[in-house]
Amino acid sequence: MEKNLTDKVINRLTLYHSILTDYIEKNIEYISSPQIAELLHVDNTQVRKDIALLNYKGKCKVGYKVKELKLLIEETLKFKKVKTAFIVGSGNLGMALAKYDNFEAYGFNISALFDISPEKVGTSINGKDIFHLKDLPKIAEKNDAKIVILTVPRKNAQEVTDFIVKAGIRYIWNFTPCVLSVPNNVQVWNENLIGNFLQFTVNHGVEDN
Amino acid sequence: MEKNLTDKVINRLTLYHSILTDYIEKNIEYISSPQIAELLHVDNTQVRKDIALLNYKGKCKVGYKVKELKLLIEETLKFKKVKTAFIVGSGNLGMALAKYDNFEAYGFNISALFDISPEKVGTSINGKDIFHLKDLPKIAEKNDAKIVILTVPRKNAQEVTDFIVKAGIRYIWNFTPCVLSVPNNVQVWNENLIGNFLQFTVNHGVEDN
Repeated sequence: MEKNLTDKVINRLTLYHSILTDYIEKNIEYISSPQIAELLHVDNTQVRKDIALLNYKGKCKVGYKVKELKLLIEETLKFKKVKTAFIVGSGNLGMALAKYDNFEAYGFNISALFDISPEKVGTSINGKDIFHLKDLPKIAEKNDAKIVILTVPRKNAQEVTDFIVKAGIRYIWNFTPCVLSVPNNVQVWNENLIGNFLQFTVNHGVEDN
Repeated sequence: MEKNLTDKVINRLTLYHSILTDYIEKNIEYISSPQIAELLHVDNTQVRKDIALLNYKGKCKVGYKVKELKLLIEETLKFKKVKTAFIVGSGNLGMALAKYDNFEAYGFNISALFDISPEKVGTSINGKDIFHLKDLPKIAEKNDAKIVILTVPRKNAQEVTDFIVKAGIRYIWNFTPCVLSVPNNVQVWNENLIGNFLQFTVNHGVEDN
């Protein structure tokens, strides 16, 4: 089933999940598709279609059970399957991501950071140690880690990529503004922030000012 | 023409732009669609289709002129139209975005940051002043700024949103993990990082480990 979810559906499901988390905090038991639709400024039909993909039906007039729907999204998106990942580059962005506790709720265990700066190596952030990049190969082997969140400066991006790929990293979540060259057995997800925002400004109409 | 570009096309165009920038740095005059396709691990046909949308044709055997193609992407995505934006929240993520000089190449002028922390207000980062949040309304009016990049903690996200919306902000690039409630004349772009990454792990197959 999961294979048929488009990227946009997955993206919306995580937003629904975020709303459901809020509702649980507020001890609200039911949520309706119009309520979700209004919060996200999307069409009600869209919300119902997405949730129908999970084979889940709400109750007439009261809507969906918040806890059940949340659990179902978690199962569909495999939040319970813990995936170990490293952050490579402990500048502001790496630090921000290391502090982001929400990752764990989504099944990501950020187990360590790596850097080359003598001021950073040996310290820790949010309970996660910062190691020297040269130690990544042996730590990756020990942890069976295959995912790296890459937040190094642009000028070092390719060199660091070559090094971590040689160390067995197979999935790179690339926050650098570089297009990385990798072998075919390595997958790169370009977190193209500017591209994301341009989708917003070009297609969703930022007014001239 | 711009109106017909899908989000995915826009996203790929910014990646092509990043490759073209590299090529210009390396003084390479031509680039072919297979070269772009190989770097991005996408299909050559896809690259040619995207570029055809710009009404640009390469030369047989030599490919596209790097400088011309880069300029055309910039025009299509309106990089030259300068858009003033504020960063609200100067934690690690806000600081990382403030340091990201690439924004300017894409037409975003991050003119100031806002925070409430006494240690931060009055300082500056990357040549941008950090003001107290309470001063945002008058500074927004003076700068005619309508875009905010929101990087405050989750617990303050809605309260800060209400405040900046009242101050005339109309576009919010939301990096908090909250679904914000806003009036209909305000647009929110949820930078749903977890959602982005789950697209990668669910649909592009992160192996179990």
